[in-house]
Amino acid sequence: MTTVTVWNEYRHEREDDAVREVYPDGIHATIAEFLDDRGFDVQTATLDDPEHGLTREVLDDTDVLTWWGHEAHEEVSDEVVERVHERVLSGMGLLVLHSGHYSKIFKRLMGTSCGLKWRESGETERIWTVEPGHPIAEGIDECIEVPETEMYGERFDVPAPDTLVFTSWFEGGEVFRSGCCYRRGSGRIFYFRPGHETYPIYHQPEIQTVVANAVSWATPVDT
Amino acid sequence: MTTVTVWNEYRHEREDDAVREVYPDGIHATIAEFLDDRGFDVQTATLDDPEHGLTREVLDDTDVLTWWGHEAHEEVSDEVVERVHERVLSGMGLLVLHSGHYSKIFKRLMGTSCGLKWRESGETERIWTVEPGHPIAEGIDECIEVPETEMYGERFDVPAPDTLVFTSWFEGGEVFRSGCCYRRGSGRIFYFRPGHETYPIYHQPEIQTVVANAVSWATPVDT
Amino acid sequence: MTTVTVWNEYRHEREDDAVREVYPDGIHATIAEFLDDRGFDVQTATLDDPEHGLTREVLDDTDVLTWWGHEAHEEVSDEVVERVHERVLSGMGLLVLHSGHYSKIFKRLMGTSCGLKWRESGETERIWTVEPGHPIAEGIDECIEVPETEMYGERFDVPAPDTLVFTSWFEGGEVFRSGCCYRRGSGRIFYFRPGHETYPIYHQPEIQTVVANAVSWATPVDT
Amino acid sequence: MTTVTVWNEYRHEREDDAVREVYPDGIHATIAEFLDDRGFDVQTATLDDPEHGLTREVLDDTDVLTWWGHEAHEEVSDEVVERVHERVLSGMGLLVLHSGHYSKIFKRLMGTSCGLKWRESGETERIWTVEPGHPIAEGIDECIEVPETEMYGERFDVPAPDTLVFTSWFEGGEVFRSGCCYRRGSGRIFYFRPGHETYPIYHQPEIQTVVANAVSWATPVDT
Repeated sequence: MTTVTVWNEYRHEREDDAVREVYPDGIHATIAEFLDDRGFDVQTATLDDPEHGLTREVLDDTDVLTWWGHEAHEEVSDEVVERVHERVLSGMGLLVLHSGHYSKIFKRLMGTSCGLKWRESGETERIWTVEPGHPIAEGIDECIEVPETEMYGERFDVPAPDTLVFTSWFEGGEVFRSGCCYRRGSGRIFYFRPGHETYPIYHQPEIQTVVANAVSWATPVDT
Repeated sequence: MTTVTVWNEYRHEREDDAVREVYPDGIHATIAEFLDDRGFDVQTATLDDPEHGLTREVLDDTDVLTWWGHEAHEEVSDEVVERVHERVLSGMGLLVLHSGHYSKIFKRLMGTSCGLKWRESGETERIWTVEPGHPIAEGIDECIEVPETEMYGERFDVPAPDTLVFTSWFEGGEVFRSGCCYRRGSGRIFYFRPGHETYPIYHQPEIQTVVANAVSWATPVDT
Repeated sequence: MTTVTVWNEYRHEREDDAVREVYPDGIHATIAEFLDDRGFDVQTATLDDPEHGLTREVLDDTDVLTWWGHEAHEEVSDEVVERVHERVLSGMGLLVLHSGHYSKIFKRLMGTSCGLKWRESGETERIWTVEPGHPIAEGIDECIEVPETEMYGERFDVPAPDTLVFTSWFEGGEVFRSGCCYRRGSGRIFYFRPGHETYPIYHQPEIQTVVANAVSWATPVDT
Repeated sequence: MTTVTVWNEYRHEREDDAVREVYPDGIHATIAEFLDDRGFDVQTATLDDPEHGLTREVLDDTDVLTWWGHEAHEEVSDEVVERVHERVLSGMGLLVLHSGHYSKIFKRLMGTSCGLKWRESGETERIWTVEPGHPIAEGIDECIEVPETEMYGERFDVPAPDTLVFTSWFEGGEVFRSGCCYRRGSGRIFYFRPGHETYPIYHQPEIQTVVANAVSWATPVDT
């Protein structure tokens, strides 16, 4: 059974009432719950845990790590970043969610700035499936509509994904490569755009399906 | 100097007053003119020419072929398609424009259905640059806006492009991989979405720049 | 459970004693047996069956089709090729084995000549794993050694694979991209080079592992 | 005209008579000379120059930087690495040569370990052209033979190249992806394997052709 560690910065939810209303126990609790419901073996870890909850022991026992961070990327210690980096290269899967695009670990793995355009105005996003036969798109229609979200726009400064699974349309006029697969070392990485802290996006069933599919896809092969 | 053959079905312009108003001498004449202005050695050929204007002699003398067709794809002879196919594999560049996505030659080279969604309602398109460092994007801003166009939407059933240069946003809610590079055999292929017959899109300077850049990019190397 | 149809031209084995000695009941029987041993639901079909054994009914019931052909590619009817092509685009997996590189269906899907260099001199091949984290490489060491084989050399005229899993070294001085993944339509295709009729290559356990892994990988997702 | 800065560690040549015999004025002098002969505007810089010869001013004036290093990768200052990294993302081309695979700048851009197998035994390498239509392969036959070289073998722990142009065969039984194109930010990167300090590989005309082609290919587009 795939062992998943759901990592969360867990600051917004403790600092901001509006966020807490959407994710009372933290974004990690919501993600952990729906992954647990789908049969994964799930644990959580957060920034303010000792070693950010990502000791060597925890990582060695993790098949897939999911990463949500936003305002405190710089507080993640370089030592832990290197530890996660090594584990990805040796096979651990990594899901980078939404504002995790600017995390140290994602920038470390991509080698680029990972910059993008953004605008926070609660606009509609439509996530189009570009590769319908990909396992991460299993059970997803041609399009997922997110009623209100923060916009992320191109150019997204990442290496061209090994496989592009989803591309987003935003009401205000932008597009974004929102579901990007990468292989690095022996590990698989999936960047998935949706999921701002002030919108209940991780409560949306199709988004949960994609995250769960991505966890399955990123599970390491036996070697 | 790169020798370009601009191929056009050339039916709409002779049958339909509205189209003739936009392209009085045919889409091919407009494309040929702006390529000639940019220093290419240009000739044209159309469906109703003998052998569609694509004799072995013409093709042997062509570095890059541009292709526009729409209502008469089926009238292109299989023999000429095979001839063009062979030339592409042996190095000739090919630009497939707009509704050329359903041409025999493009389907032959892609190996897929090349299907897509479409809607004709004169909506706005924004063509976002996804690879700003690519030679086909040279001189292009982060986005080209086409005020009125036919919509093409995903899923576009083509192989994942070797390089994705542009992605389009449409007012009505769709996205589209609108600038796709492929290598096949020793030849280079660029699919470029804009260019419906009832809109003056090939008169738009940024679109002309992309087409000219793509011709340069697709020019065969000496071997 | 994945349903596999193992297709074989099945001519060499009936015409040539040396081949029959290696594959007494045909290459398909050997492949079917080791896939059955690994828990797949397997059936076989051959060129000389009515409709080559590939009726619409059989194909509709097939998750993954494996293809071995060599001397009689031209005898495969265009109608059956179109039928298989449609099924791949709608999600069926396809494994193309060794000399199947020149089959009508592979050329139809690739859009290129699929040509390559070859030499038959019983030389050693070493199949190097280029993507150790890929599910098709699961359980495979850094290299599979095939003691005696026919050489296939670059340039292999195919589109750049979406993922390159294996690259072969040949004693006589050539290299070859020998494990190539493609997505076409909603289907997944894997080309795997080893497997000449006069060498017992499909009896080799590591080769069997790769074929079985590839069947799993190419199994369609639920849609 | 493309401005090239040829960077060299320049230690082996000063420390070791055998190396000095092959490259009396340093590897950089040899590379600079053949690029100058081909019409590029060339300057050189070495590790022991102030700021390694790579001041902001020099880099701002450089279209393409070529990088050769081996024994002193760790002596390159992190500040200069960041400076080069930024310039690549903003468009400067980068050619990474041979043992430069382990340079800080290449690892920074790739995000992986960049590890590989190696053996120094003066064996023959055959560099096969996998993409004959690519501009970096212009003028190159199907294969370049290097009579004596150090072996580099897979698995090469890099991201799958955006385009794989060459693959090497080694006498001792290994293969290697020896010509790899990457886009990162707005810049283009080419890794080219040949070129050990104790063999006269940069004196070989075909190798010089590839390096010169790669400089042309990596020259930034106007933006």
